[in-house]
Parts: sequence; C-alpha cells; structure tokens
Amino acid sequence: MAREITALVFDAYGTLFDVHSVSAAAERLFPGKGALLSSTWRAKQLEYTWLRSLMRQYEDFSRVTLSSLEWALESLRIDADDQAKRELFDEYKRLAVFADVPPALEKLAASRALAILSNGHPDMLDAVVDHNNLRARFRGGVLSVHPARIFKPDASVYRIVEDTLGVPRAVVGFVSSNGWDVAGAKTFGLQAFWINRAGAPVERLGVRPDATLGNLGELVQLLG
Amino acid sequence: MAREITALVFDAYGTLFDVHSVSAAAERLFPGKGALLSSTWRAKQLEYTWLRSLMRQYEDFSRVTLSSLEWALESLRIDADDQAKRELFDEYKRLAVFADVPPALEKLAASRALAILSNGHPDMLDAVVDHNNLRARFRGGVLSVHPARIFKPDASVYRIVEDTLGVPRAVVGFVSSNGWDVAGAKTFGLQAFWINRAGAPVERLGVRPDATLGNLGELVQLLG
Repeated sequence: MAREITALVFDAYGTLFDVHSVSAAAERLFPGKGALLSSTWRAKQLEYTWLRSLMRQYEDFSRVTLSSLEWALESLRIDADDQAKRELFDEYKRLAVFADVPPALEKLAASRALAILSNGHPDMLDAVVDHNNLRARFRGGVLSVHPARIFKPDASVYRIVEDTLGVPRAVVGFVSSNGWDVAGAKTFGLQAFWINRAGAPVERLGVRPDATLGNLGELVQLLG
Repeated sequence: MAREITALVFDAYGTLFDVHSVSAAAERLFPGKGALLSSTWRAKQLEYTWLRSLMRQYEDFSRVTLSSLEWALESLRIDADDQAKRELFDEYKRLAVFADVPPALEKLAASRALAILSNGHPDMLDAVVDHNNLRARFRGGVLSVHPARIFKPDASVYRIVEDTLGVPRAVVGFVSSNGWDVAGAKTFGLQAFWINRAGAPVERLGVRPDATLGNLGELVQLLG
C-alpha cells in the first residue's frame, strides 16, 4: 500500500496544533469578533509568507504573525492596544493540540523517527511543542524553515528534511492539513499525506496527495 | 512632487477591470451565491498564482482561473455543469472597466507611454482590453507575465517592463489596486502608486507605496 517510510515529518500549525484556538482569547478581548479575527489573521499570515518568499524579502514567522495581526485588526476596524496584540500573539505559544494527535504520535513514534517541519520561528515552535508536552515524540527534531530564510512551499524548505535527517526524499512521509503544503512536499518528492479534518476540496495544484485521511488516527491505520 | 516618470504601467485585474463584475453572471446562474462565489474564486485564483510561482509549477492564468473556479464551486457545494463553468470563465474576457479609468487614461496617455503588466494570459488580456475599447491607450503594449512563466510579485515579472519598454526602473510608474502588487513593484525599484478604491489597510510587506490614491482621477491630479 504505502511505500517504505523511514521518517515521518509533520507540519505544525493547523496539523498538530489548532491555529483557531486563538479564537477564544480573541473573543474575550473583542466580543463577537473572535472567529472572524482568527480567520482573517490566519489567511493574511499565510498570504504574507507566500508573498515575502516570492519577493525574496524573508522576515521570520514571529514578525509575519504580528504584521498580519496588525493588518487583520485594521481591516476589521478593531482598536487594539499593544497589550492586547501581545496577548493574541502569545496565544501562538500555547495553541491547543488536536485531540487525535497525542495518541497517534505515541503509536507512530514506536516504529519510526518523527520530526516537525514548520514555517514557525524556532522559539515559537519550541514553546508550543513544550506547552503540549510533545518534545519526546520528535526524535528527528523540531525543524524550522528559518535557516533557509524562505517559507513553504519553496523547494529549499522541504530539502531541510533530507539534509537534517540524512534520508532520501522518497522514503520520507510528510503529513499536513494544509493542502498547499501537501502539494509542495509532493512536488518536491516526499510521500505526502493530507489530513483533511474539515472535508475541504483538494487543491488544484497539479499533484495529488498519496493519501487523504480524516485524522491522524487514520494515518496510524494506514501505516500500520 | 513625484519624480520623473517616463512610462506608466498598469495592473489589469482589480485595477482597470473589476473582477467582481463576474458576480452578476454568478448570481444569475446560482441565485444567492453570486458575491460569495466571486470572492472565493478570486482569493483562490491569487493563492494559486503565488503557490505555483513558489513551487516553480507555472501554468497559465487561464488554467489557474479555471482551476480556482473548480475549487471555489466545490468549496461552496455548488453543482455546476461544464457550460456554466465556461460561462463564468468567459466573463473574464468582458470584465467591466472601472468608471474612473477611461477619462484618466485619456489624459495620462497624452503625455506619456502607457502599458499594462498583468498576470493574465495574452489571449485573456487582449480580449478584455478590446472589449473595453482601450487598445489605443496602451502604446507601450499590453504585457503579460506569460513569457517569464512565473506570476507577480516575482521580480522577473517587473523586469519585463524594463526589458520591453527599454527604460530604467526608476523612471517607471507602476499603478495597481492590489497592495501586494504595489509592494512587489516597489521592492523591484519601480515608483509605485496604490489605487485604494476600497479603503483597505496598507499591506505590511516592508515597503510603502510612493502614493496612495482613491481612484485614477487622483493619479491624474498627482502627475499633472
């Protein structure tokens, strides 16, 4: 079924950790606007990673996250002081883990090296991984795009996996809930597994995931 | 006020032509869903241009426009047959021109070479320019990113202006309603004018437009 997989690499934001867990804090600060602020912020955050990568104007994910928050607040005409912005930004360090993640990682880690590959700045990543007590699961490392100074889905990001883990791309399984990230990994030559919790349409980007799964539990079943 | 400007180059979609004029056709085909289909389609269309550029998987803007329409329809659970899709796609060849555009172009063309630089495939661009009887205004040419096989805001796109018009970037004025396109042009070294008809927040992408204007009439006033 699936080909040989020596290492399994996970996207972080949206895949292991729920970026929309910031909604609760946003709703508390700005009643009635939490969900809209969260979705506007996230969309702009991704947009800025793509645009800055194309413009070759990298700035780290912490700054992109703050810049996109500023834009989202202004766009929604929300008047937020520096403390409120800091509070929202800090939520990224304590995002909730999806419920299906901890038991699946425990099983998957028993037979393979697991790693994370994320757009996140190393400090942000370390914080959210430790907040959710997942450090021990990732023997392969918690890898950031930061040394490459460009974001996903640029090929040089996925190359970090080969270079760091020392395994050829064909035996790496890459797991993401972001369909465009799956497309980037697949185009680079990794085996790509799409965790489609929301039942979203498949992205029309010229490649298909090797498998589409409803949650990480289904990935455990697939990989055995 | 503004520095010397030898050539003035315009973005097409969203700047000269209103991409949301497809809403009417969409509303006729799918009552109650026209505006949402139009905005979902446009957002995904841009996303695909950025992602395919980063992945170095160019396909022309006609195909990206169709792929993003397919995604948007599935996302909104709209059941559309091939004829309806073709009808919506064909709307891109007869987008409405913004009302402030024709009189402003007439005045601006009197003293400077005007050109278009667009993500659009040449066939799509030619069709919408001719549909709106604007061909004669663009003595500098109707330029597409197509020969570069990558989309805005990659620097090689803005370089097409220098190479085709034979003028250095510093004396080219670039005009766009898309804030990220303005940022790309400015980062490349063009003078960048943002037509912000919608009163959107400025993009946080590390550069500022040389001027922000409410419509093309204000650009005429600025450039005299």
